[in-house]
Amino acid sequence: MGEPPLKVALLGCGVVGGAVARLLSTQADDLAARIGRPLELAGIAVRRLARHLDGHPDLPVDPGLFTTDAHGLVAREDVDLVVEVIGGIEPARSLILAAMENGASVVSANKALLAEDGATLYAAADKQGVDLYYEAAVAGAIPILRPMRESLAGDRVRTVLGIVNGTTNYILTRMDESGAGFHEALEEAQALGYAEADPTADVEGFDAAAKAAILAGLAFHTRVTAADVHREGITEVTAADVVSARAMNSVVKLLAICELSEDGQSVGVRVHPAMIPRSHPLASVREAFNAVFVECEAAGELMFYGRGAGGGPTASAVLGDLVAAARHRVGGGRGPGESSYADLPVRPMGETVTRYHVSLDVADRPGVLAAVAQVFAGHDVSIETVRQRLLDGGEAGDAELVVVTHAATDAALSATVADLRRLDAVRGVTSLMRVEGE
Amino acid sequence: MGEPPLKVALLGCGVVGGAVARLLSTQADDLAARIGRPLELAGIAVRRLARHLDGHPDLPVDPGLFTTDAHGLVAREDVDLVVEVIGGIEPARSLILAAMENGASVVSANKALLAEDGATLYAAADKQGVDLYYEAAVAGAIPILRPMRESLAGDRVRTVLGIVNGTTNYILTRMDESGAGFHEALEEAQALGYAEADPTADVEGFDAAAKAAILAGLAFHTRVTAADVHREGITEVTAADVVSARAMNSVVKLLAICELSEDGQSVGVRVHPAMIPRSHPLASVREAFNAVFVECEAAGELMFYGRGAGGGPTASAVLGDLVAAARHRVGGGRGPGESSYADLPVRPMGETVTRYHVSLDVADRPGVLAAVAQVFAGHDVSIETVRQRLLDGGEAGDAELVVVTHAATDAALSATVADLRRLDAVRGVTSLMRVEGE
Repeated sequence: MGEPPLKVALLGCGVVGGAVARLLSTQADDLAARIGRPLELAGIAVRRLARHLDGHPDLPVDPGLFTTDAHGLVAREDVDLVVEVIGGIEPARSLILAAMENGASVVSANKALLAEDGATLYAAADKQGVDLYYEAAVAGAIPILRPMRESLAGDRVRTVLGIVNGTTNYILTRMDESGAGFHEALEEAQALGYAEADPTADVEGFDAAAKAAILAGLAFHTRVTAADVHREGITEVTAADVVSARAMNSVVKLLAICELSEDGQSVGVRVHPAMIPRSHPLASVREAFNAVFVECEAAGELMFYGRGAGGGPTASAVLGDLVAAARHRVGGGRGPGESSYADLPVRPMGETVTRYHVSLDVADRPGVLAAVAQVFAGHDVSIETVRQRLLDGGEAGDAELVVVTHAATDAALSATVADLRRLDAVRGVTSLMRVEGE
Repeated sequence: MGEPPLKVALLGCGVVGGAVARLLSTQADDLAARIGRPLELAGIAVRRLARHLDGHPDLPVDPGLFTTDAHGLVAREDVDLVVEVIGGIEPARSLILAAMENGASVVSANKALLAEDGATLYAAADKQGVDLYYEAAVAGAIPILRPMRESLAGDRVRTVLGIVNGTTNYILTRMDESGAGFHEALEEAQALGYAEADPTADVEGFDAAAKAAILAGLAFHTRVTAADVHREGITEVTAADVVSARAMNSVVKLLAICELSEDGQSVGVRVHPAMIPRSHPLASVREAFNAVFVECEAAGELMFYGRGAGGGPTASAVLGDLVAAARHRVGGGRGPGESSYADLPVRPMGETVTRYHVSLDVADRPGVLAAVAQVFAGHDVSIETVRQRLLDGGEAGDAELVVVTHAATDAALSATVADLRRLDAVRGVTSLMRVEGE
């Protein structure tokens, strides 16, 4: 090749950083051929040097590359490209901004930072004329951000439905397939390494909400931050919900939902568990796999499926971005910058149009269905189906009433449920969940 | 915006061309915002003017844009971008080459041309420093070529399994779901517009073979033409094959298969019907939908799913490419060119490693299984499972023997089947199909 190498600074050397360093070495010849110049590691910034100095038996890098001085590394004049896989807001943001200030293009896997303050990063990239890529921030190895930013650039996205958190999908898959409760399924996920000791970020939907913000921003050319996202986790999903879903030939999934309103004048962004029909392509996404289902005006329905986490898959996404940024160094040009021209308002959750599935434990006596139906009507919520059956195991004289509504505002639906709880004949709400994907 | 528009020449105004013209008009503001300059139709080359001059009620373009002089249109000095949706080898190739010669970037949906002579087009694009994009040539709206060329550029693709022909997938879906035979299902597909009056290109696998060549070329950085692809269509798939697949909890699909050999030193590219397990993500791709399943070393399993044909979906892919090429006009840079550095040989089909499912109608007498097993052993083909059952409807004394082999070369497997046919005890081979996706 003869050309001098492009220098890559790697920030972070955990599971993902280690996999990136490994691919840079094992794939070196292919990468050089695809880029037109070789890539060379300039340095690897780590928190604790001691861990790395003995060398990793499986990591073919010179121990002299490790440094604890991340700021010094990104300020080096010879660095062309910076890969940030530290995660979290700081010091990642300062390092990325310093790297760009220094003229380097940046590849990041940092969903939290992109979802909280992507605008600052984009502004810095624009000012310096460098690239900012972050495919690995959403759905790991699955190419979804590049297709959204580029392949669908001539189309109009209407809806994005994503299973973007592997931990919660594993838990919900176990609950569906084995009948386990949430806590039992969580313990199993933890034992298998699919859930962390503190699973809050996953099971409370924070991780999915950050990804939803990123997806919505790209889909609708509008700035969306994690704080704009309505978020409900899966900790309150019960075995009864899963059984109810099964009875409707549906399955419970934690969905990241980004949607354009009918009139195209606002967007809704939310993360919550929902029942989707088993015939929906997302329903067969099992265990820790991720998938993103996109509905476009011209392209129709698309789905992107693969592994959402793990060192290899995430590193694959990082390397794809690195090749793109490196090619721009060699041949000129830049990847797409922030596209927020549409600048649409984010609708509050109450104004979002949804459908509810409600299972009620009611007294088995005449007039109950009429009373229940009256509550729905009082909020202008129309009912699609009602099923009623006597309960075997319940108190004598109990029945179960399962109502699926037509679409209504979430505010009307939630006010309806609040009123239902106050009805004399209603002994309890045994399952309450939104219905999507129909 | 104030910037002068980029001029687009559209070659062809059938279903896809019409949809492209429509999107250029309805999405004009969005496209301008995403590109940084507006796009403007410079002209539309059509074969017969009379059809178009009365105006299309649903096509908001100036009738004065239509011309029968395609060569004159691509030679115009003001044309920046050319969209070729004529199809076929000539005059499409000459027009594309003339357009590039004239300095225009080209977006094509022409799978036949790319699969036959992509090298010539790439060479011209390189020489002129223009872009050549063709996302719409494979799997319609599904972003698969850009992810393969760009997102996976840091990874190594091992296998591509694609359902890339909607017509045959529709027919096979009907055969699976209703028990229809091939001819009945084909007639149904024709009645619904999923198959053409002359369905040869689809049912004989020519269309899928062209797409397989394109996918293999991108996946393995090697030149592959349609002539390199081993091709078998679905005309010989019988209701008995479908029943046999069902008994194995499998389904018959026409697959485009591109694979790197174990040692990474050669590639195999083939199109043929195969049985895949119902648990495989491709098994649930129904009717006219397409999907491409990709296995990579680092990213693991990925799948891309959506509509493989139709005006809107194909136009969406064309417009995505058009935005990319237009952005390069505005901001500099170029998309990736041909990547054929690996230059791997394409293995003959006989050397390809596959597995067979063979159903035999055999005499129900002692020693038959031993004789059959001896034939497999004689070709070094090892057997994974054998099932034997008496036939209800057959001749008295008949039994069915269903054999699934372990992996062996296709030549050994096909020689085995030829020898089986010669065995006295074998009355007939009732189903013979390769097994994939396990």
